[in-house]
Amino acid sequence: MRMIDIIEKKRDGYELTEQEIRFFVEGYTKEEIPDYQISSLMMAIYFQDMTDEERANLTMAMVESGDQIVLSDIEGIKVDKHSTGGVGDTTTLVLGPLVAAVGVPVAKMSGRGLGHTGGTIDKLEAIQGFHVELTSEQFIKQVNELKLAVIGQSGNLTPADKKLYALRDVTATVNSIPLIASSIMSKKIAAGADAIVLDVKTGEGAFMKTVEDAEALATAMVRIGNNVGRNTMAIISDMSQPLGNAIGNALEVKEAIDTLSGNGPEDLTELCLLLGSQMVVVGGKAKTLDEARKILEGVIADGSALEIFKQFIEWQGGNGQIVAQPDLLPQAKYSFEIEAPRSGYVTYMEADEIGTAAMLLGAGRATKESEIDLAVGIILNKKVGDAVEQGESLATFYANSEDISDAKNLFLANFTISDDKVEAPPLVYKVITK
Amino acid sequence: MRMIDIIEKKRDGYELTEQEIRFFVEGYTKEEIPDYQISSLMMAIYFQDMTDEERANLTMAMVESGDQIVLSDIEGIKVDKHSTGGVGDTTTLVLGPLVAAVGVPVAKMSGRGLGHTGGTIDKLEAIQGFHVELTSEQFIKQVNELKLAVIGQSGNLTPADKKLYALRDVTATVNSIPLIASSIMSKKIAAGADAIVLDVKTGEGAFMKTVEDAEALATAMVRIGNNVGRNTMAIISDMSQPLGNAIGNALEVKEAIDTLSGNGPEDLTELCLLLGSQMVVVGGKAKTLDEARKILEGVIADGSALEIFKQFIEWQGGNGQIVAQPDLLPQAKYSFEIEAPRSGYVTYMEADEIGTAAMLLGAGRATKESEIDLAVGIILNKKVGDAVEQGESLATFYANSEDISDAKNLFLANFTISDDKVEAPPLVYKVITK
Repeated sequence: MRMIDIIEKKRDGYELTEQEIRFFVEGYTKEEIPDYQISSLMMAIYFQDMTDEERANLTMAMVESGDQIVLSDIEGIKVDKHSTGGVGDTTTLVLGPLVAAVGVPVAKMSGRGLGHTGGTIDKLEAIQGFHVELTSEQFIKQVNELKLAVIGQSGNLTPADKKLYALRDVTATVNSIPLIASSIMSKKIAAGADAIVLDVKTGEGAFMKTVEDAEALATAMVRIGNNVGRNTMAIISDMSQPLGNAIGNALEVKEAIDTLSGNGPEDLTELCLLLGSQMVVVGGKAKTLDEARKILEGVIADGSALEIFKQFIEWQGGNGQIVAQPDLLPQAKYSFEIEAPRSGYVTYMEADEIGTAAMLLGAGRATKESEIDLAVGIILNKKVGDAVEQGESLATFYANSEDISDAKNLFLANFTISDDKVEAPPLVYKVITK
Repeated sequence: MRMIDIIEKKRDGYELTEQEIRFFVEGYTKEEIPDYQISSLMMAIYFQDMTDEERANLTMAMVESGDQIVLSDIEGIKVDKHSTGGVGDTTTLVLGPLVAAVGVPVAKMSGRGLGHTGGTIDKLEAIQGFHVELTSEQFIKQVNELKLAVIGQSGNLTPADKKLYALRDVTATVNSIPLIASSIMSKKIAAGADAIVLDVKTGEGAFMKTVEDAEALATAMVRIGNNVGRNTMAIISDMSQPLGNAIGNALEVKEAIDTLSGNGPEDLTELCLLLGSQMVVVGGKAKTLDEARKILEGVIADGSALEIFKQFIEWQGGNGQIVAQPDLLPQAKYSFEIEAPRSGYVTYMEADEIGTAAMLLGAGRATKESEIDLAVGIILNKKVGDAVEQGESLATFYANSEDISDAKNLFLANFTISDDKVEAPPLVYKVITK
């Protein structure tokens, strides 16, 4: 088998066989095939796309390029959730306890990550004593008994995907549906997921700017999942403004507690119920999404979801008291109300830039070396569609520095108030179940 | 300027500016831009094509990536001819003396090369004493006085093209009209041509298998030439069977002498008159192709073209006697008649494989290190459309070995005789003057 023939075949629009896909994925991982042939193939794929079968084969070839987490000692269908990323996305913190309370095992491998706020682990570390250094045995025991555990990323998972992504990033081939879809799915499958629920964001704050693009990506991932034996569903949700009200690590933990108590922001609660329902269905604990939703509403109402969150924190060394007393979480020294410069209606918020404002306060990492300030961040008091009076608070900034001018200026520059009322954007554009 | 933006721009179908094209050509030549970004760009160009302006800019950026031959000390319009390559192509040997006899200066830089027979220099070295080691001064003096000189390739011409071609060769991006056209044109222009005539071959023995592809390439090159101030014309000629009858070095010199004497094979003579007419027109020595053709027929009829060939050989150290006595050229020890296995009509000849048969006899190089046997080769006695009786000679093989079975088997396997007569293929499909 020769690499040039594979490039030529794809360039001319033919379907690559499983053997050909394995040949280039394995050859590239072992550095037997040079970058320049792979980048040329990636560009050919950009133009010629891949069939469902090719996408499934590419995904599994990347899964098998490195270590795979084996969760067979955990009883039940292990369900993982993936979000394509956005601003103020507290869903993971809520969904774990929520579906665990229904008996769906959540064996979560999480990261820290760059961006507006920290990753899931950073957020959880806002809880005093909380850690993710579990042995495999501890991790498995905890998931079997509590149905919920979070562990840090370990092992050499999907090295082919890492190499391919780094190359695509510098050769203008990132933006290709089959390549994005197989990249995301390979990571979830290598991490041991039996079933997967996807939250594909769309809007200014997301990678997929239009609903059409988001739908194409979601459909691609759902098909890959189902074609490789992982029951997969997806939701296309809005990221034209931040989700919920909190952007910041401790602030989002507090928001998760509110939501698990039934007092969370409406949009965050609704999205968690929708994603949670899919997790419960693919996890085999309900037949229909409606049935699943009723069960989830029940575990919020009776306090059992919140109780799982408390036990989960305690199992992993954290102070469970914070569930009842969220003011035990790190508190910023200063708070500032950002006042509306005029009266009118909130018509637009550039989610991305609002997130960057939170990062400027210290909530997120600009580079791998940056330190996160877990206490700081933004609570939005107004969202798109809301009426506002001049001088009313648009948002509360929590900071450990008295000078918040950069963050404030960026926030106001990306927060539009107009005379005419607009409707709030829909929270969810589409539910994709197959 | 960032390379990734250039790749993305071309990927999305936009036109690259001159600055952007120079940026990647210069950056790649200096090894400041890595192979993997260039190969990705080449694949994007494969799919998105290039505008006339981009093609002209790419050509000139490659010309300026290395040395350029300056022929300004030679009077008149220096015309170069380029053939896209075929089997038994003796046109260069004929055209040089033919148009020089009309006063068009031919300052030819030639190579040796791989393939069925040697390059132009190898063929000329079949003449005892002939050499191409001229100083620049000798070369210029000879072209000014005789209008014809051939020199070996020297200098670091179009290094960008060399690097790009080597990369395209292993990344399935050779077969792209804008890239092929700019590659060929950059080499001719760097070698000092003021005007260019192109012989684009089509058919089984050629790179361009269909007339449509050949026409697209020819048109692309003619446009590039005219857009960068080099008067350029092209002919699309047939290479479904070898041109002329001789395939071999000394054999082709003999055939060139015959043709310059007015006794050459009909197809070779006709193609030389067509290409020669274009050279005379772009060289400013006639207004129309018809007028040029009449002048060329005159210099064949009055012997002056042949006389220039003789003087050219003598100026470069060769034995001019061979013009009158071609049997002074190297002679093979053995000759063999290849007999027709049946009666019928010649319907097909796979030009490529017939050429390889000549190479097996020793006429060409399989690798750079191979030695060429200047005496050996094939003379075709029958061509497509001819009637043939069983046992009649299809071809004469000249060899220095008694065992010619490999070459003979290959020849016969690629020479088809059928019951039904077919027409000889047209010699020329199209003449492209702008």
